[in-house]
Amino acid sequence: MITAKARAVDGPDQPFRAAEIKRRDLDTHDVLIEIKYAGICHSDIHTAHGEWGAVNYPLVPGHEIAGIVTEVGSEVTKYKVGDRVGVGCMVDSCGECENCRKGEEQYCLKGNIPTYAGVDKYGEPTQGGYSTHIVVTEGFVVRIPDNIGLDAAAPLLCAGITTYSPLRHWGAGPGKKVAVVGMGGLGHMAVKIAHAMGAEVTVLSQSLSKKEDGLQFGATHYYATSDPDTFGKLAGHFDLIINTVSASINLDAYFSLLTLDGTLVNVGAPGEPLSLNVMSLIGHRRSFAGSMIGGIRETQEMLDFCAEHGIAPQIEVISADEIDEAYKRVLASDVKYRFVIDTSTM
Amino acid sequence: MITAKARAVDGPDQPFRAAEIKRRDLDTHDVLIEIKYAGICHSDIHTAHGEWGAVNYPLVPGHEIAGIVTEVGSEVTKYKVGDRVGVGCMVDSCGECENCRKGEEQYCLKGNIPTYAGVDKYGEPTQGGYSTHIVVTEGFVVRIPDNIGLDAAAPLLCAGITTYSPLRHWGAGPGKKVAVVGMGGLGHMAVKIAHAMGAEVTVLSQSLSKKEDGLQFGATHYYATSDPDTFGKLAGHFDLIINTVSASINLDAYFSLLTLDGTLVNVGAPGEPLSLNVMSLIGHRRSFAGSMIGGIRETQEMLDFCAEHGIAPQIEVISADEIDEAYKRVLASDVKYRFVIDTSTM
Repeated sequence: MITAKARAVDGPDQPFRAAEIKRRDLDTHDVLIEIKYAGICHSDIHTAHGEWGAVNYPLVPGHEIAGIVTEVGSEVTKYKVGDRVGVGCMVDSCGECENCRKGEEQYCLKGNIPTYAGVDKYGEPTQGGYSTHIVVTEGFVVRIPDNIGLDAAAPLLCAGITTYSPLRHWGAGPGKKVAVVGMGGLGHMAVKIAHAMGAEVTVLSQSLSKKEDGLQFGATHYYATSDPDTFGKLAGHFDLIINTVSASINLDAYFSLLTLDGTLVNVGAPGEPLSLNVMSLIGHRRSFAGSMIGGIRETQEMLDFCAEHGIAPQIEVISADEIDEAYKRVLASDVKYRFVIDTSTM
Repeated sequence: MITAKARAVDGPDQPFRAAEIKRRDLDTHDVLIEIKYAGICHSDIHTAHGEWGAVNYPLVPGHEIAGIVTEVGSEVTKYKVGDRVGVGCMVDSCGECENCRKGEEQYCLKGNIPTYAGVDKYGEPTQGGYSTHIVVTEGFVVRIPDNIGLDAAAPLLCAGITTYSPLRHWGAGPGKKVAVVGMGGLGHMAVKIAHAMGAEVTVLSQSLSKKEDGLQFGATHYYATSDPDTFGKLAGHFDLIINTVSASINLDAYFSLLTLDGTLVNVGAPGEPLSLNVMSLIGHRRSFAGSMIGGIRETQEMLDFCAEHGIAPQIEVISADEIDEAYKRVLASDVKYRFVIDTSTM
């Protein structure tokens, strides 16, 4: 077994503490990664606080992982020692079902194995990236292009792919009008990526407080959803709306912004059910859809796309001792736009 | 002005009575149609009963119209006297907006002009097909192929196109698994059309009472949604679900039947908002969509498709005096599968 330093929580209301965790010895196709940076995703907070169902504590969150390969299993072919690599929200899947065979491992019919708070195929609980080392089968490791810093690369593994995948799937590109709802960790990446894909991007945010940033990231327009005129002005305007906000929204109001055959895609899920008037969809053959991260092949494609277009998230690097404070600031929307833990401070 | 015999209602709780109504004199592009048959659609009942908002009574419903051209305006080029023709749910649109130019007049950005309970471009209230004659601009008239009886053709103008359009749009065809929810006027047409398109069709109905019919119409499978095992058995099974039921359904249960990238399309709208759990969509990148009738070009395509595949609705022809009784029977689901009024009995 390999020992790694980590930061763990022992319960929903507990602070993070220094911990030592075990990583499995390398199987033939495993890669040992020395983690350099780990992003803090809002879902880490939900899970750590036990808001998304029962959790086996102690828990080490983190599914935005960037580091260096330090050892490889005997049959590993994709990576060698020294490679710059990343791991995202899942570390394995059945590999055999229809969806896995399509490269859509996130939708594995047997359930993918999440990077933390899951159980791996050896029956052991998975522990995430707030740690110095992780062992992952090579098929769930991606290569980080040389011109993306490891610190900036980390958030791409969740915030990047979660927005890239639906933008690609629903055809964001030249001639398309795309709205991004919410300007947080996911939203700011959606703006950068949609703009790089060639779409005309509009941000719909509660206020105009981040307008300057939004325009700099590539948005052409920026509207406050708190302004009652916004919805009338933009009626029937968008081909695609990416909703990065997990809180409940007035779906019918957002549907009214879609053009014929337009789609509103949720990449986050509110805890409670949402209500909608079906006529909002029927009136212009609109769709309401959901999308969850992306497959491994598409995650690599996203990293290569970001490298090619010089796209990286805006990050604030913190030390391991600052995780609790960072959580508070994320909950207060006081982050521009992603916290990344420097794991050398573990 | 042209005088036509009709059947009208004078208020939400009133019975139908014999009436004389005026049709406009023919404008240059107008066609005068002697109506032979008019289908009874559930939405006629909602409108006549004032359940879909305020109505100007007296009201003549009917938007499943089949008849013969008896006179044409001076510049009509598409039709001549004696042609077998049909009129569906709309009689005009702006013709200039983006959607009209795409041939999607039903989604006209200025609002299409409905066949009844609307206001035409001359400022007059529109009156529907429970009548002996109607005047319609040629662009909103379709040709009924010779091998479809006028009585059977009538319901195709709403029930046919309402189901054909989403089946086409979402790619029903060989290799696709399509479920049809509800086995009424729309549902039974959806089964026949989806089967003719080459899809494997499953009916999801409250009970198995119409199972024999469903299999005869082309369904391969038929399940009762009242059986608690149905949803478990069919989890993740369908590429496309066409929901013809306007009543509230448990959306999440139906979403769970969709495969990766599957779509549930509502062609009817419940009066009250529906509730859904967004995770039901996110889990397998599913979509929830709405669809409303079809454009004029597509309506013609549907008629030609039905003629080519020998498809027609199951109808029960009634006299004009039987409309009230027919409404009661529709509300009691006691119809197989569409009432059609013989307008010679007006």
